[in-house]
Amino acid sequence: MIEASICTIGDEILIGQVVDTNSSFIATELESLGIKVTRMLSIGDDQVTIANELRNELRNCGIVIVTGGLGPTKDDITKAALAALSGSKSYVENKNQQSINTRILKSRGLDVLESNKQQAMVPDTCEVIANEVGTAPIMVFRFQDNRFGHPATLYSLPGVPYEVREGISEVINDIRDHTPLSDIYHKSIMTFGMAESELAQTIEQWENDLPKEMHLAYLPDILTGVRLRLSIYGGKTAREQAMVNEQLEKLKGILGNNIYSTQDDTLQDYIGRLLKQNKKTLSIAESCTGGLVSALITSVPGASEYFLGSVTSYAINIKEKVLNVPPTILNRYGVVSSLVASSMAEGVKNLTKSDYAVSTTGLSGPTGDGQNPIGTVWIGIAGPNGVTSVKRNYQNDRDVNSKRFAASALDALRKVIERDLRNSQ
Amino acid sequence: MIEASICTIGDEILIGQVVDTNSSFIATELESLGIKVTRMLSIGDDQVTIANELRNELRNCGIVIVTGGLGPTKDDITKAALAALSGSKSYVENKNQQSINTRILKSRGLDVLESNKQQAMVPDTCEVIANEVGTAPIMVFRFQDNRFGHPATLYSLPGVPYEVREGISEVINDIRDHTPLSDIYHKSIMTFGMAESELAQTIEQWENDLPKEMHLAYLPDILTGVRLRLSIYGGKTAREQAMVNEQLEKLKGILGNNIYSTQDDTLQDYIGRLLKQNKKTLSIAESCTGGLVSALITSVPGASEYFLGSVTSYAINIKEKVLNVPPTILNRYGVVSSLVASSMAEGVKNLTKSDYAVSTTGLSGPTGDGQNPIGTVWIGIAGPNGVTSVKRNYQNDRDVNSKRFAASALDALRKVIERDLRNSQ
Repeated sequence: MIEASICTIGDEILIGQVVDTNSSFIATELESLGIKVTRMLSIGDDQVTIANELRNELRNCGIVIVTGGLGPTKDDITKAALAALSGSKSYVENKNQQSINTRILKSRGLDVLESNKQQAMVPDTCEVIANEVGTAPIMVFRFQDNRFGHPATLYSLPGVPYEVREGISEVINDIRDHTPLSDIYHKSIMTFGMAESELAQTIEQWENDLPKEMHLAYLPDILTGVRLRLSIYGGKTAREQAMVNEQLEKLKGILGNNIYSTQDDTLQDYIGRLLKQNKKTLSIAESCTGGLVSALITSVPGASEYFLGSVTSYAINIKEKVLNVPPTILNRYGVVSSLVASSMAEGVKNLTKSDYAVSTTGLSGPTGDGQNPIGTVWIGIAGPNGVTSVKRNYQNDRDVNSKRFAASALDALRKVIERDLRNSQ
Repeated sequence: MIEASICTIGDEILIGQVVDTNSSFIATELESLGIKVTRMLSIGDDQVTIANELRNELRNCGIVIVTGGLGPTKDDITKAALAALSGSKSYVENKNQQSINTRILKSRGLDVLESNKQQAMVPDTCEVIANEVGTAPIMVFRFQDNRFGHPATLYSLPGVPYEVREGISEVINDIRDHTPLSDIYHKSIMTFGMAESELAQTIEQWENDLPKEMHLAYLPDILTGVRLRLSIYGGKTAREQAMVNEQLEKLKGILGNNIYSTQDDTLQDYIGRLLKQNKKTLSIAESCTGGLVSALITSVPGASEYFLGSVTSYAINIKEKVLNVPPTILNRYGVVSSLVASSMAEGVKNLTKSDYAVSTTGLSGPTGDGQNPIGTVWIGIAGPNGVTSVKRNYQNDRDVNSKRFAASALDALRKVIERDLRNSQ
């Protein structure tokens, strides 16, 4: 099995200012190729340390992926270390990256400074993968067998997470082109509504009965639920893919509509597809989630095809005036109640003339309302067949509660749309 | 300066299943004590690897903090490695932890299993700090000078973030009791509107002239701008803090209102304080940002004291009907225009009767409008003294553009509020 090491360079990581999310992201990508990550390492912006540590990683692994340590203010250190490590005597300008950088800076109304120009200069020992969304190119250093006792490749990426996310596919392609990898076939099964431990207990027997060559990974996320990833090595043939599908059908029998998709999806992607395919529109009324449900729905490209708009009603009189929630309901049942949730959903549905509407009203914390525990949310869903509401309870801090509320609202919405689609068939 | 290394043990980290947030949290704690974290390392659940890697860290650093690799299912591996490393021949029961574990399990309605009992058994070479909120105790291994060439201490904590957060204060106390520490003083300076490279060039002379014992770090973030952190060692005395303040005043002279705060702030925190202190209210009208500006504003606890509500108008008729944007303006100037931004801000201000309102209308991508380049946003700000609008251009993907739009809207808003406050003085 091919082994890899992931290294992060940057004092900001070591002082705890920034949580390193790149390494985890890259690890997931490598793991899905069947590459084993044996170590992750974070080191500071020091030239000697960088050169020594990377040399050590290259001795241990055939693939070393480095993020960070690049950028207009500290470019020199990492590049000098990489130049020293690879025996480079001079830097060359990468014209492609230079023109990308000029374009990026101009589009931001910025002048191209000397420090920006330096970013497109790379050691003459590396190949370059252009960074289309940032000014530091991806550098690829290849080392022959005789250097570290095995062929080794070092990829140096900038540290900005979205640049890593954009650039990683080219790195993966390069790894595929240069490394003999065994085939691996993955199937993602998106679940929502069960915690990882509950899910594990529910499917324990099924998991134990999986064929030896199959592997299951639990990949939980607050916003998308627990993704189950079923992998099979040598998954190129129809036979192996059929084995995966057979297991998937069994799993569907156990988990029912806790599974919302068998693609690598988010709830908002899935809901977007449902609405688009069925030519339905959506509006949103938020209170405690403060715009998050709307932000999730609109994070999907093309959301304007089905999303009309939303109202965040933090103040009570916005609930009354804009969403038409009757004051008597607010007074009698309180803001965090089933009837207010239903009324908000109906209000925004009427205001926008959408087919569906979802609403949230709850307490994300830290202050409560003296009636409901912090972490309580009521979700309303209005649709062509009436209004329903559901209550959820979580026990986290403000930030996590808000995210759980928003994800639960999307989950409740998709269940109503699914039910309507089933009934109309 | 005392140096430390932070190690994480667990296969779940290396396959990317879990993002390691413990290391960052621990680093912040150590750094505020003036302890320099030189490395962070993540390794898998393998006894030989654990023993070798930890031995190596102890050779390099006086303090090694380990998280993870403990728990009822995989306790044995890490403990055996630590026993081997410290020359332990036998395990002893820690009675205090045993009774805590019995209490914790009973309170969860669980029986005390053999695997639970094993958790309170520790190598006879360690001291124990009780874990009050979990079943794996914190183990402290002290090594004399002659072992690694310097005195060294290894702290082994469980990997559950909540348990780390609870347990770290006892670890910090133990470090303080056993280690001579120097003081460190930090000052954060929050800037917005200049990219890292532009900022670095602008303050280059000032940075070069900093006294030797001061250190500057650039900490960029899409949503909060570039944070400059000025640090000084031995920062206990008034003299050294005065030195920092003197430099800060010089910096303010150079950067002007690109500095929005000299606390460890976000734009939404700062705006919240401005509004609260001046008893002003805010509403928001969003188009391209889809709810993100509102979600940022409401991420601040207590936002309900000044935030009334928001309207996300994705469909044109919501802009007309709810926000009262005149159809003639929409037809004549297009949705992404100065007048539509102004009109949206005025519309939501009138609807909610707020003191201030901010709006966004732009193109986050991937589809454009045939008129404006993708990455264009118009921001409108309505306040007691009229309406203004500003245009910004970015060139990123949909997700990053949305975030830049939202942060720029907050920055434009705070500048208008600041101007009004200056003028009213």
